[in-house]
Amino acid sequence: MSLSLVFALLCALVALGYGVFSIHWLLAQPQGDERMREVASAIQEGASAYLNRQSLAIAAVGSLMMAALTHWLGLETGIGFLIGALLSGTAGYIGMSVSVRANLRTAEAARNGLDAAMQVAFRGGAITGLLVAGLALLGVAGYYLALQLALQLTAPGGVEGQALYALVGLAFGGSLISIFARLGGGIFTKAADIGADSVGQLEAELAEDDPRNPAVIADNVGDHVGDCAGMAADLFETYVVTLVATMLLGGLLFGDDAADAMAYPLVLGGTSLLASVVSTFFVKLEPGDTQILAALSKALTVAGVLAFVLFVPVTWMLLPASFSLAGSDVVFSRWGVLGAAGIGLVLTGLILVITEYYTSADFWPVRGIAKASRSGPATNVIAGLSVSMKATVAPVLMICAAIWAAYALAGIYGLAIAATSMLSMTGVVLALDAYGPITDNASGIAEMADMGEPVRAVTDSLEAVGNITKAVTKGYAISSAGLVALVLFADYRHALAAQGKTLSFELDNPVVLIGLLVGALVPYLFSALVMDAVGSAARVMVEEVRRQFRELPGILDGSQRPDYSRAVDLLTKAALKEMIIPSLLPLAVPLAVGFGMQWLMGGDAGALALGGMLIGTIVTGLFVALSMTAGGGAWDNAKKYIEAGHFGGIGSEAHKAAVTGDAVGDPYKDAAGPAVNPVIKIINIVALLMVPLL
Amino acid sequence: MSLSLVFALLCALVALGYGVFSIHWLLAQPQGDERMREVASAIQEGASAYLNRQSLAIAAVGSLMMAALTHWLGLETGIGFLIGALLSGTAGYIGMSVSVRANLRTAEAARNGLDAAMQVAFRGGAITGLLVAGLALLGVAGYYLALQLALQLTAPGGVEGQALYALVGLAFGGSLISIFARLGGGIFTKAADIGADSVGQLEAELAEDDPRNPAVIADNVGDHVGDCAGMAADLFETYVVTLVATMLLGGLLFGDDAADAMAYPLVLGGTSLLASVVSTFFVKLEPGDTQILAALSKALTVAGVLAFVLFVPVTWMLLPASFSLAGSDVVFSRWGVLGAAGIGLVLTGLILVITEYYTSADFWPVRGIAKASRSGPATNVIAGLSVSMKATVAPVLMICAAIWAAYALAGIYGLAIAATSMLSMTGVVLALDAYGPITDNASGIAEMADMGEPVRAVTDSLEAVGNITKAVTKGYAISSAGLVALVLFADYRHALAAQGKTLSFELDNPVVLIGLLVGALVPYLFSALVMDAVGSAARVMVEEVRRQFRELPGILDGSQRPDYSRAVDLLTKAALKEMIIPSLLPLAVPLAVGFGMQWLMGGDAGALALGGMLIGTIVTGLFVALSMTAGGGAWDNAKKYIEAGHFGGIGSEAHKAAVTGDAVGDPYKDAAGPAVNPVIKIINIVALLMVPLL
Repeated sequence: MSLSLVFALLCALVALGYGVFSIHWLLAQPQGDERMREVASAIQEGASAYLNRQSLAIAAVGSLMMAALTHWLGLETGIGFLIGALLSGTAGYIGMSVSVRANLRTAEAARNGLDAAMQVAFRGGAITGLLVAGLALLGVAGYYLALQLALQLTAPGGVEGQALYALVGLAFGGSLISIFARLGGGIFTKAADIGADSVGQLEAELAEDDPRNPAVIADNVGDHVGDCAGMAADLFETYVVTLVATMLLGGLLFGDDAADAMAYPLVLGGTSLLASVVSTFFVKLEPGDTQILAALSKALTVAGVLAFVLFVPVTWMLLPASFSLAGSDVVFSRWGVLGAAGIGLVLTGLILVITEYYTSADFWPVRGIAKASRSGPATNVIAGLSVSMKATVAPVLMICAAIWAAYALAGIYGLAIAATSMLSMTGVVLALDAYGPITDNASGIAEMADMGEPVRAVTDSLEAVGNITKAVTKGYAISSAGLVALVLFADYRHALAAQGKTLSFELDNPVVLIGLLVGALVPYLFSALVMDAVGSAARVMVEEVRRQFRELPGILDGSQRPDYSRAVDLLTKAALKEMIIPSLLPLAVPLAVGFGMQWLMGGDAGALALGGMLIGTIVTGLFVALSMTAGGGAWDNAKKYIEAGHFGGIGSEAHKAAVTGDAVGDPYKDAAGPAVNPVIKIINIVALLMVPLL
Repeated sequence: MSLSLVFALLCALVALGYGVFSIHWLLAQPQGDERMREVASAIQEGASAYLNRQSLAIAAVGSLMMAALTHWLGLETGIGFLIGALLSGTAGYIGMSVSVRANLRTAEAARNGLDAAMQVAFRGGAITGLLVAGLALLGVAGYYLALQLALQLTAPGGVEGQALYALVGLAFGGSLISIFARLGGGIFTKAADIGADSVGQLEAELAEDDPRNPAVIADNVGDHVGDCAGMAADLFETYVVTLVATMLLGGLLFGDDAADAMAYPLVLGGTSLLASVVSTFFVKLEPGDTQILAALSKALTVAGVLAFVLFVPVTWMLLPASFSLAGSDVVFSRWGVLGAAGIGLVLTGLILVITEYYTSADFWPVRGIAKASRSGPATNVIAGLSVSMKATVAPVLMICAAIWAAYALAGIYGLAIAATSMLSMTGVVLALDAYGPITDNASGIAEMADMGEPVRAVTDSLEAVGNITKAVTKGYAISSAGLVALVLFADYRHALAAQGKTLSFELDNPVVLIGLLVGALVPYLFSALVMDAVGSAARVMVEEVRRQFRELPGILDGSQRPDYSRAVDLLTKAALKEMIIPSLLPLAVPLAVGFGMQWLMGGDAGALALGGMLIGTIVTGLFVALSMTAGGGAWDNAKKYIEAGHFGGIGSEAHKAAVTGDAVGDPYKDAAGPAVNPVIKIINIVALLMVPLL
């Protein structure tokens, strides 16, 4: 039992402690009047009902999966899967439970001005962020420690055979929950949105968040189950997968120093958690200051700088002064590894800046879309599609630069450490993300509970920033997924080599090429299926809202209350039904490609095709996800820019065109795009788990 | 001087002879009344003016390029480039000249019924198709023969050093013209379309092709310069590149039989040309039969079957009974090569069927988009985007199956032959494509010259089929480009090996990966730039049409004539200006990646990164181009489906939504998507030409 592991576990406990303490603080904040509590509790009930039903569905699939894993790959892998699934689910649950309580407290705090409201909203987000990151680190470090003790691993590195698969199983558990949470949540939130907008706003001409709209509670519930619970599970999964992938590489490549090389990513994660906790205290708006985004970003800057400073002694203590990786003569220095960790932090910052550029109304991409709206919906959509495609260029070039630099500094282990340090910022980044639905809801509650103009002004300006932070987090998640996938590919190759299959994945091998092309089509097919699923679920919602207006004619004059919970209930069923087929795709395709090509061509064809498939999925997945999330954010903010009075403002032809663009972008940015992220990783992990079976 | 080459040259001359004969036949058809001739001559003048100006621009760039090639790679390469450029340009010119003359003759023939009009339109298309395929074969076989004689090549294979680059230079000349023609034509046609639709139809409420619309002639000119001249240059280029790539491989891999293996693709091309000429006589509609698409497809079926039958003796005569490729012990049989040729023909048929499924209103993808239009433009666009992404799946799987089967039958040479036989159908496929703008124009002329309802009914039904054949041709071009690109990658690797660099392009090499990612972003960036370019050129057009309506108020009541030629002239300038930047991208990126990585990392980094880049561009290029061309066609036909009276018909809300979708799809299917095709090949050829410089 090493000191490094204990340190990592302690850091995780500090983060969890901060979370628990902050929950107490949050719950002690005033909850406002009766009407506000009523609205908030409707949202809470809807969100819980949805998550409970989703958990049941996942539990059924998960049990089968756990049984299969235990049968084929051993009990440790099954238990790992269970831990990963439970923690990932818990992360989502906590995130959502906190944010459905932070929303009305933020609205109430808005009576005391911008800073007070922002404090509550950010603290709500920070709870989710730090609990998720803390649970992830706790799970990986704790299970690794337990395995060491239980299996009495003494060999350097100590992760072989069953233990290796046990950790991968943990990552898989997290990933499986994450795809369901992302997809189910994404379909729910967008279908609710479309139902609320297209019938409530366009047909019945109600304002946004008007309490007479039967879909309004579902819409607010959707913010939580999609943006908050979905994103929490997603980042939990990405973080866990990254830690595990980096540990595996360290164990495989470091020879005598393997134990330290495996603990190193856990310790980096721990120090980043400490830095993240400290950073939350730097978020503050002076009276008169309205730069909300700058105030929020300060947390990230502080966390990044502080973490890097702490990385220095950690690196000095854990890593040998110089080392070379198994199978190569190149000698690297530990300061190269530290440099790679720095690259991960810098990449995080750059991705945030680039995403902000493409999705904030302060810059020309969004304004260009707004301007194009003047000549109608078609030119708005074309401009948005063009922005979405252009938005992939800079992030991909940055990722390429990071790959190059990290490799140059410390080989594939450097790349893995860059990915780890990037994801060690999960706590703060998720805090910024979870801030989004809280403020979005606060705005909704302020409107529904008639809290008056000054309060709405505060909540509206908080909400506008939330749109950017949500887009930024998605860019971060997918870019980091790109890096991690490359590390997973290395793990896959080494796992094959450990089975005696030293394969060379050459681009001109037709089997690899076929794998590459099939892998590349997965994100395309998957996104198309998700967009169709959103459409189907939205139709259910549209019909229900129309039915309520028809059968309860008193709704519109205020004499009858809409049946919010029936709308939530119907949508819950529809979303869960629609998520099944797309979520099976990343499980089915690697099985079909691996076993299919093996059966068709024999030899190592299955393993080779799978390898090609992994890279193919990353390549198109990166582009599809980056373009969809950035494009969707840009469309949304172009609409908001017009609503702020440009190009004719609300009610103008330009505004109508921008509403169309926003609706096109909705399934892009909140359902299909972000769900590509877990797809990439599930495919990678399934491939890794298939290695012993090929 | 081998008999095989003479045979290929004779076949090319037969095709050219058929073309010349058919031109005489076509010109002898009645041209209708004064008003029709007036409209047609306005279109002719506009198209000539555009192409002349475009040729000047290309000549300037081309001269520089030729000088550079001659300087760095020798005079033979420079001359090859010139031949390729001239022939490609000629192909575009002839295609356009024929179709601007076939249009009014088709309209006039429509007075005599469906079959008469279809005969004229198809014959017009067949002239373009067979002249393009004939010129391509003539150029490659002729220059190869000339090189053999001039350089006195006697070695088996005979293509080494300068002679190798001379043929690649010819391919490059064709490609360069093709990207300009595709891009310039695509930008022109879509900008004209948007100008005509958004001001003329929507603001001034004129019907389509109303002569009072100042953009109407530009719109009709656009059909020719984009769909006809652009596609002709594109397929000329694809065909030439395929022949050259296959010849190179044959020369490199066949040892003693290299001369025959190099002549084989030329002979296949020749026999397919003969079969294509014969097939044109099978296109016929019996009185009462209205299945235009079936009648047209018969040409393709006849050509394919007949070609395959002729392939049998050709294969028997030219190829050794069994052989193995250099560097491998696997023994293949000549019947395996014949099988690979068959695969190319079958793939052609399958791609046509799949594209028809996704773009014809007879099937659910298009009807689904039409149905989604009922709930507004956003759901129409989302449904269209979903269809466009799904439409990539089946073609890519078919391509994978073809790769697998062709490799299994005859290794990489089998894949090259599959690509060659697929592209040997160029003549017939291009005939179907060029049929599109001819009937589109015939419809326009019938409207503008007031030819009456019965004539319009005939031209309209011909035109509707044209939309499908245009989409089908684009799917064919891009799918074949995918196959060819893999062959070009093999050429690239062998060219490096010939320079003593036997490189292994492994997916886990960071340099290869970086190249892969950078290559993958090219189609994204390129399409975004093209969509922006269409937008800018369209704004010029929109302003000009508005200006004419404002300054010449008599246009709308018919007392003043719009200034068609000024609209054409302004748009010509705008399109040519806008095409510069996107068209430089495929030239600049390989140079930057190759030399940049070489400078940054030394060793073979430049060559490795370039290799990764080639595959990256193919992978995303295939998806981007397939999704854009299929999606655009589906949106277009969904609009036409509604206009045929479904979901409320013309004037309904669904129709307005479908018009928006169609406008979104326009730059997708006619500008950005098809231009990705030459981008992929230019990048490949530039990489090939860079080999001696790395």
